[in-house]
Amino acid sequence: MATIADIGVSAALNILSAFIFLIAFAILRIQPFNDRVYFPKWYLKGLRESPTHGGALVRKFVNLDFRSYIRFLNWMPVALKMPEPELIEHAGLDSAVYLRIYLLGLKIFVPIALVAWTVLVPVNFTNSTLDVAAKLSNVTSSNIDKFSISNIPLKSQRFWAHIVMAYAFTFWTCYVLMREYEKVAAMRLQFLAAEKRRPDQFTVLVRNVPPDPDESVSELVEHFFLVNHPDHYLTHQVVINANKLAKLVKKKKKMQNWLEYYQNKYERNNSKRPVMKTGFLRLCGAKVDAIDHHISEIEKLSTEIAEERKRVVNDPKSIMPAAFVSFKTRWGAAVCAQTQQTRDPTMWLTEWAPEPRDVFWKNLAIPYVSLSVRRLIIGVAFFFLTFFFMIPIAFVQSLASIEGIEKAAPFLKPIVETNFIKSVIQGFLPGIVLKLFLIFLPTILMIMSKFEGFVSLSSLERRSASRYYLFNFVNVFLGSIITGSAFEQLNSFMKQSANDIPKTIGVAIPMKATFFITYIMVDGWAGIAAEILMVKPLIIYHLKNFFLVKTEKDREAAMDPGSIGFNTGEPRIQFYFLLGLVYATVTPFLLPFIIVFFALAYVVFRHQVRSIYQHSTCVINVYNQEYESGAAFWPDVHKRVIAALVISQLLLMGLLSTKEAAQAAPFLIALPVLTIWFHRFCTGRYESAFVKFPLQEAMMKDTLERAREPNINLKGYLQNAYIHPVFKADDEDEDEDEKDMLYWTGEKENVLVPTKRQSRKNTPVPSKMSGASSPASSLPDTVHEKSEP
Amino acid sequence: MATIADIGVSAALNILSAFIFLIAFAILRIQPFNDRVYFPKWYLKGLRESPTHGGALVRKFVNLDFRSYIRFLNWMPVALKMPEPELIEHAGLDSAVYLRIYLLGLKIFVPIALVAWTVLVPVNFTNSTLDVAAKLSNVTSSNIDKFSISNIPLKSQRFWAHIVMAYAFTFWTCYVLMREYEKVAAMRLQFLAAEKRRPDQFTVLVRNVPPDPDESVSELVEHFFLVNHPDHYLTHQVVINANKLAKLVKKKKKMQNWLEYYQNKYERNNSKRPVMKTGFLRLCGAKVDAIDHHISEIEKLSTEIAEERKRVVNDPKSIMPAAFVSFKTRWGAAVCAQTQQTRDPTMWLTEWAPEPRDVFWKNLAIPYVSLSVRRLIIGVAFFFLTFFFMIPIAFVQSLASIEGIEKAAPFLKPIVETNFIKSVIQGFLPGIVLKLFLIFLPTILMIMSKFEGFVSLSSLERRSASRYYLFNFVNVFLGSIITGSAFEQLNSFMKQSANDIPKTIGVAIPMKATFFITYIMVDGWAGIAAEILMVKPLIIYHLKNFFLVKTEKDREAAMDPGSIGFNTGEPRIQFYFLLGLVYATVTPFLLPFIIVFFALAYVVFRHQVRSIYQHSTCVINVYNQEYESGAAFWPDVHKRVIAALVISQLLLMGLLSTKEAAQAAPFLIALPVLTIWFHRFCTGRYESAFVKFPLQEAMMKDTLERAREPNINLKGYLQNAYIHPVFKADDEDEDEDEKDMLYWTGEKENVLVPTKRQSRKNTPVPSKMSGASSPASSLPDTVHEKSEP
Repeated sequence: MATIADIGVSAALNILSAFIFLIAFAILRIQPFNDRVYFPKWYLKGLRESPTHGGALVRKFVNLDFRSYIRFLNWMPVALKMPEPELIEHAGLDSAVYLRIYLLGLKIFVPIALVAWTVLVPVNFTNSTLDVAAKLSNVTSSNIDKFSISNIPLKSQRFWAHIVMAYAFTFWTCYVLMREYEKVAAMRLQFLAAEKRRPDQFTVLVRNVPPDPDESVSELVEHFFLVNHPDHYLTHQVVINANKLAKLVKKKKKMQNWLEYYQNKYERNNSKRPVMKTGFLRLCGAKVDAIDHHISEIEKLSTEIAEERKRVVNDPKSIMPAAFVSFKTRWGAAVCAQTQQTRDPTMWLTEWAPEPRDVFWKNLAIPYVSLSVRRLIIGVAFFFLTFFFMIPIAFVQSLASIEGIEKAAPFLKPIVETNFIKSVIQGFLPGIVLKLFLIFLPTILMIMSKFEGFVSLSSLERRSASRYYLFNFVNVFLGSIITGSAFEQLNSFMKQSANDIPKTIGVAIPMKATFFITYIMVDGWAGIAAEILMVKPLIIYHLKNFFLVKTEKDREAAMDPGSIGFNTGEPRIQFYFLLGLVYATVTPFLLPFIIVFFALAYVVFRHQVRSIYQHSTCVINVYNQEYESGAAFWPDVHKRVIAALVISQLLLMGLLSTKEAAQAAPFLIALPVLTIWFHRFCTGRYESAFVKFPLQEAMMKDTLERAREPNINLKGYLQNAYIHPVFKADDEDEDEDEKDMLYWTGEKENVLVPTKRQSRKNTPVPSKMSGASSPASSLPDTVHEKSEP
Repeated sequence: MATIADIGVSAALNILSAFIFLIAFAILRIQPFNDRVYFPKWYLKGLRESPTHGGALVRKFVNLDFRSYIRFLNWMPVALKMPEPELIEHAGLDSAVYLRIYLLGLKIFVPIALVAWTVLVPVNFTNSTLDVAAKLSNVTSSNIDKFSISNIPLKSQRFWAHIVMAYAFTFWTCYVLMREYEKVAAMRLQFLAAEKRRPDQFTVLVRNVPPDPDESVSELVEHFFLVNHPDHYLTHQVVINANKLAKLVKKKKKMQNWLEYYQNKYERNNSKRPVMKTGFLRLCGAKVDAIDHHISEIEKLSTEIAEERKRVVNDPKSIMPAAFVSFKTRWGAAVCAQTQQTRDPTMWLTEWAPEPRDVFWKNLAIPYVSLSVRRLIIGVAFFFLTFFFMIPIAFVQSLASIEGIEKAAPFLKPIVETNFIKSVIQGFLPGIVLKLFLIFLPTILMIMSKFEGFVSLSSLERRSASRYYLFNFVNVFLGSIITGSAFEQLNSFMKQSANDIPKTIGVAIPMKATFFITYIMVDGWAGIAAEILMVKPLIIYHLKNFFLVKTEKDREAAMDPGSIGFNTGEPRIQFYFLLGLVYATVTPFLLPFIIVFFALAYVVFRHQVRSIYQHSTCVINVYNQEYESGAAFWPDVHKRVIAALVISQLLLMGLLSTKEAAQAAPFLIALPVLTIWFHRFCTGRYESAFVKFPLQEAMMKDTLERAREPNINLKGYLQNAYIHPVFKADDEDEDEDEKDMLYWTGEKENVLVPTKRQSRKNTPVPSKMSGASSPASSLPDTVHEKSEP
């Protein structure tokens, strides 16, 4: 059993390691050669010149300005300075609200910790149950347990303190949750209202367009909406199955990259034209002139792409039964998204179109029955994954044992039999197999979500997050408390009564406090500090830079900053909420560790997310969100904290019933009922802000816009907003400078009146250039020539 | 233990009693003095003259035409003849679909019974487990058990037959359910589409209008919808809290009735003016001239009513924050009902307006938070009602014992102590107390639903039905299987493991087969036959006629036919579904009894509901539905059959696991998962037809109507459709002939073009008469003078 001294040493060690990470960060971040890792957004926006140009060679890689080392922690106060509205403006609402999850943790746990320490710790500490037990049975219990509920004798009246505290903590948590839900809902609505015009405000995604022998999908969509939304329908874009085209374009891009590489090489060393082999991995096969080979390959691909593009655009089979339908007003779109269109609720399904960046194109054409079957399959698969994931892993582990290897590959026998290798295999391999599985788990969950058929990246991430949380709850939380695999737990739970399950777990809870304290320090504190170092991106960037980067463009691709990673990050935070709430009444000693985690994490992520003012230009530091969902994930966050609260209440009930505080336990039954009711109340009160778009808001914005810009060409603006990225990507090839002008109207009569209110970054703005040279221009002409009402 | 012979005798007895009921019905229905009970709708529609006019005195009460006795069962084939579309037209969709529940039972159970008898009965019967057991332990088991799963030895491979059958039955049930859901959804949509213009097609109920210090509710509503639905808003009616007025009007009506009674009396006997006493129950107090007294009383009430009406109309406090908002098109109403109006989802709540007849006026003004709290309170109350209802009953029973009565009323001691009274009290009173509670249970549940705040009668009935089903399931089904009160069950379940609960129940299931067979015969067969006699209405009518009926109008009121009573009838049918599904695999012997029930009930209810052609006039026979919800209850029916299916599967699993058919039970786990998935699939596929109104349909009907009647005055039509019934009732007082012309537009310029398509019965039609004499006319003028857009 760990004593307080042990915990203290461990805490010191972990704080030290966190500190070392922070110092390392402070040093590394001002080294020029890491510049691209820590300030990738500056480069993506083109605001920072690569420091490798000019200067002495040493200065290229090492910062020799010693003054900058003295200020090594100065990023911390800066990180906290920026006011929230500016944060939202620069980093998006998703990031700002994500940060509020940490703040929520602080708001919940700081008062709870204060009250618990002033009330529960004295109540627990002034008993001597454990001392007596220790004397009797000669078992030395950890002195942390002296602070916990274990130290209170059976049938003591002191348990009333815990019950009152359970009520107080529940009410406080619910109060904070409600305030926060209200705040976030208001922030979301304000964000949506204050936002500039975006195509998704006017657009609805229509799926499951029924097949019609006489009309094409495009005609069908147009007729349907002209009839049923006659005053509001504006235009539409059919969804094209361009997966093959996307593959070809990707291949061409790779070829072009190689070509550039060889050209650079040839420029640097004019004496010899670069040669390459054509075979497998360029390691074997006939030698050819690399530049010529690539030029011819690119040409071949170009014609192939042009053909495929033609086929895709003209072949009715490549048009999927889905479309993005745009309306004249936000009101019209809001109406269409919220209503049922036809008798058959599985046809003409309408929903808000996700942001163009947020669309997951592959899933747009899944029919209703298939979706339903997929959901069942994934549900069953996830159940097995959660409860039986140890079985395949045990199988792989058995393969990865000495005998397994010898069996599979007898020729390796002499190598494997050496002592060192043997011990490595026996000691590390099983652990590594498990670790590898856990690393790939988010990816597996993401693949499952993709198979399930969600149509936007944000919903994919949300679904993966909730699965990840469940997995963690079953396998980490329950798995740590009741040792044994999840399946064994399941089996034993099935055999226990409904009353006994909370008891079994509840009794084990206080005993595991020291384990979870250590867990918080190692996974939480040090993990968060490692996060600011961005160890993974740092390593990957330098590896890529060293081995793979051939051209400037590659370097840009290598410095992919990643996004916050909602699907893994949020469940991890939620796990700390769970620990905090469960231990708040049982072992309040754990709470300060949770608070330190939340505080540290808040500062670190705020740094990662926030913008810093430097050279009086505002740039977002590290993360580059793929999409902006407008904090659509908050209902999930709320739901999971409520779930943690209910779990903590049930476990406390279980624990108290073993303490024979029989007259006390019934008072706790009301708590989960009230908590679940509170959740339903909050859902009814606030959730719709995250799901629906109120007509009043839509009407207000429409009216405002009509008054301000009476003659805006909305059709031109929306015409090509939802075009498959492969057609966009092709534009980018043509001219890098066109990046912000991805879309081309293709119709001369649609002269757009440029306005100040247009976002130049995320929303498509029609280019004023002639798009004749752009292959994508053939698409809008062909597909949309009939979309005029 | 009951043997097959016992069951046979019991069946014969019950069939006999059912037959007696039917003969009694056949005789009673052709007796003139019962005419009003069995053909009330004829009178309500004014198509049948009271047979008491003219003819010999005997003929008034007894049918002496012996030929009619010979054809005493001829109603049966007639009852089955009418095709469904006509049934819908004459009795409404609700009744027609309600009948389909019985048909659903036949469709599910006839094939299941055939298969079960050909497969499972031989499989069960050809074992000798029970015989052996009987020899060993000298226990004689019922020979019904020889047909049941109990007769199969432990670990037998024969259990595979039951598993395969469980799959087959599940798939068959699901298939029938899906077909039926599809059919009913189509019927509902067709019904809604084929229906004539109704005010609720254009109207949306808006609740929780936020308070505004500057504007009245009416102004607020008008401005809000003019701004947010500018192209569609037509008019609105605010909801007025007229509960006090309604009370006064009711009182006046009663007085008028008395007046008529005394006037009739005076006419018959001119010698003496009737006198009456003014005191308590007219038994004491000063004697006054009855006619004069009533005339003066009515005058007083009339002025009071006029004042109250004025107050109600002018006092802004009596206007509730709710309104019925009408739109120019069905499309506009469909849009408004399905969308969220403002940021705050608890304000401006919109939903489809119920039919005018269906509105439950009292609940229209409950704010959101209160609704949420009420739901919690009722949830908790229902839990206690279900599990602890025996406690107050036991208390009352103890009061109703000899000692209790002697204690409460010592002066009764000599009476109570007589042997006969004593035995009555001891033998019957406790049972009567329980029976009384069970009779009042539907009323109690209805009151709970009313308190919960539903705004339409149909939703009140639906909610009561689902509560009644739950109560029945816990207290009748589980209560019969595991003897002991529900609370004891709950307690024992809490102490059992999740695995053990189905086992405990499952094991008891086969043993209770004979009990449930008897239950089906007594409650089902005889009960249904009693239903056709309409014993309760018959008795009540004759009692009322004898004691209370003073005037012709009273007689009309006394012959209240009642409605089908969804809230008690449907859960009762569902109970038979539950029994059938549970016993299908366990004791197939029970299935024929279920089938007889469904067949008999179908014929009887079809007679009750259907129209008969007689004198070539179609009249609906017995039930007079209060409202028409368009089969909105079907999703509930579907849900409960699915629940029964899942319960049957879990119990079979429990039963098989005790049979040590360990390798077989896991194959059953997939069944509930598949069934629940199927339910979710069906819900997604069909439920929206019962909740939403598709825009395409709305648009189609709008277009059709515009083409057919281009200059219809919709505003006049809708203006007063949703007026509080008290204002309508007052109109009726003025002139009985105006019954069909209840509403008065109050605006001369709104000249209505009468069309054929208008329903003359249930929809308000503006009267062409001057409404100056009608007190109600002051209302529309005052409230709606501002409602012109």
